Amino acid sequence: MSSTSANQRLQQLGKILEPDLSGAGILASTEHSHDTISQLTPEHPYKICVIGGGSWGTTITKIIAENCLARPRLFRHHVNMWVFEEKINGENLTEIINSRRENVKYLPGVKLPRNIVAVPDLVKTVKDADLIVFNFPHQHLSSILSQLKGHVPPTVRGISCLKGLEVNKDGCKLLSEHISDELGIVCGALSGANLAPEIAREKWSETTIAYNIPQDYRGPGRDIDEVILKATFHRPYFHVNIIDDVAGVSVAGALKNVVALAVGFVDGLGWGDNAKSAIMRVGLLEIIKFSETFFPKSQQSTFTRESAGVADLITTCLGGRNVKVGRYMAETGASAHDAERALLNGQSSQGIVTCKEVHELLTHVGKMEEYPLFAATYQITFGSESIENLPNLLSKNL
Amino acid sequence: MSSTSANQRLQQLGKILEPDLSGAGILASTEHSHDTISQLTPEHPYKICVIGGGSWGTTITKIIAENCLARPRLFRHHVNMWVFEEKINGENLTEIINSRRENVKYLPGVKLPRNIVAVPDLVKTVKDADLIVFNFPHQHLSSILSQLKGHVPPTVRGISCLKGLEVNKDGCKLLSEHISDELGIVCGALSGANLAPEIAREKWSETTIAYNIPQDYRGPGRDIDEVILKATFHRPYFHVNIIDDVAGVSVAGALKNVVALAVGFVDGLGWGDNAKSAIMRVGLLEIIKFSETFFPKSQQSTFTRESAGVADLITTCLGGRNVKVGRYMAETGASAHDAERALLNGQSSQGIVTCKEVHELLTHVGKMEEYPLFAATYQITFGSESIENLPNLLSKNL
Repeated sequence: MSSTSANQRLQQLGKILEPDLSGAGILASTEHSHDTISQLTPEHPYKICVIGGGSWGTTITKIIAENCLARPRLFRHHVNMWVFEEKINGENLTEIINSRRENVKYLPGVKLPRNIVAVPDLVKTVKDADLIVFNFPHQHLSSILSQLKGHVPPTVRGISCLKGLEVNKDGCKLLSEHISDELGIVCGALSGANLAPEIAREKWSETTIAYNIPQDYRGPGRDIDEVILKATFHRPYFHVNIIDDVAGVSVAGALKNVVALAVGFVDGLGWGDNAKSAIMRVGLLEIIKFSETFFPKSQQSTFTRESAGVADLITTCLGGRNVKVGRYMAETGASAHDAERALLNGQSSQGIVTCKEVHELLTHVGKMEEYPLFAATYQITFGSESIENLPNLLSKNL
Repeated sequence: MSSTSANQRLQQLGKILEPDLSGAGILASTEHSHDTISQLTPEHPYKICVIGGGSWGTTITKIIAENCLARPRLFRHHVNMWVFEEKINGENLTEIINSRRENVKYLPGVKLPRNIVAVPDLVKTVKDADLIVFNFPHQHLSSILSQLKGHVPPTVRGISCLKGLEVNKDGCKLLSEHISDELGIVCGALSGANLAPEIAREKWSETTIAYNIPQDYRGPGRDIDEVILKATFHRPYFHVNIIDDVAGVSVAGALKNVVALAVGFVDGLGWGDNAKSAIMRVGLLEIIKFSETFFPKSQQSTFTRESAGVADLITTCLGGRNVKVGRYMAETGASAHDAERALLNGQSSQGIVTCKEVHELLTHVGKMEEYPLFAATYQITFGSESIENLPNLLSKNL
């Protein structure tokens, strides 16, 4: 499906949603009994489930559950959310969520809709689902997919909210492709300027969903398409734009963390807002170049026009753990390893991991020098260059 | 001159500068006796002058003066800087600058090179100049041009660092065009993510210069061209990129303030980083659309790839007076007028002026509804809409 035809289709079909979307205030009720989309009658109401009960997983489940309540003809009432079971003061987290309507560990203080069902069993979570939303730290992907394998029919569709790429020296692969390959289902991606705690509190934000209508699309009312995706995820406080560039959305979501690390470097030296925005500008260019090189079908407009592109880059570079790690290294002279130990309890910073993987790949294909910011960030992170020399490292090739 | 040929030319000629640029540390000395460009011998050394002695005017003069010291064969030693004469404790500001090497009023604490000559007389300032740099608040433009008229030969070239557009209901005109029309000289533009106090302290930043080689170009060594502009403005801490899109650079510099006002609105309501970056994203799209509509030759890449585009937008939206005005309105419920009185001593906020002018123009040409963010910012600023309704105002048309 070309971008143009997808957009035309979306514009036509999107009108169905309008009375709902434009009529609702930012803190509108979750019930819209008169909205037009609810009067569409699909062959059967779509069943949606979410895998992942962290801060972002719980937030996206809250959004979906609100839309399922609002559109009872379109969606099944209950939304299963797989939660990694753990004990909180002797009680199971899933039971706490189901009885108290609150994820006390990962999203405390946010009341959850009554139709969310926290489930500790992966296979039970996805039973009868039409759409599976993947939303957990990507290091758990292989383990989760191996447990799901054989339990998901090929007619099911997926949306990955995972951040990352599988990068090694031989190339890189999208996480949504990994899901498709393992489970045999079509999978899109959702990413945007989406700090979960803000969205959970219904502060306005935007997101981008990338999805390609598959060859075996079963038609309106019988399959997931752009209208159903918009009805699933769009809220008055969470504006969704749907495009078809899965690769662009995924690359933007993964590489922003490398740029955030470098923003932390210059921020830690007190170089000010000019320098921070210069790093973001150069970072945006290198992200686009990387995507065009390794995913030739990805589109530049995804990076310059969509929430998943420039907006998410800005949000990530305004704060977040990768900026903190870079800033700490600059302020204290600590190594990357020491910064991770001091700030992240020894967990890896996503920016550092991605920076290393990207360096390995670009070196292997002989293109490292085309990416002066990624190269400098790697060299500074692993101690072979000083942050003070960053401007010179960037001016050589730009 | 096409963008491609300009870039090719620049890449070829730019190599001349490389030993200087890549060899210098960020706080490198202003003297580079061995740099290659200094060995070029123009027909006569170029004389540069600056009109404007505010914070940004003094900072850009410092940069130019450092390069004139570093390249004595290429540039005349002294750099005249026109300063609006005023008394500081009974002493003339120009005399203070010339004797103490410090602009105590507008850039206190920053030592200036010894070859800057502060001049209170406009006509004397531009005498024998090959290049005039315009850098003052744009409301003084007409008065300054009327004083200069008849005193500037047509072979002189100009660079405008002014921010703004001349917008009214019939159309809009670049300030560099206004300069060209009044003085009969060719004029380019300089703009970027350039908070002056940071650059004055030699913290790394970038800028964009837009210049079109004119039809009457007199050739290398006899006229201002990209190499001379780069040699004039580029410093180890101030990286210059040269393009030919004067309109794009100027539109970006003017309209960013409207976006900054809207960022202040959502920041004042505590909506967080997601909302701020959403406003910047939508703002960038509307700025590009405006430029394509009123300056069809402007290039989208200026906005998405250059310091004058996305980077300056980010810097401006991270702070500055327009964000403060918007934030104050949101936090206190004050009118635009009251916010200006409280924060700016009754001076006009550039964002509010531009927002009003842009609204007048877009309404007159019947295109206001294509710019939901500009429309909403106008309506909120002048009291006919609430900030809380901003997401709905944006979702209608995007």
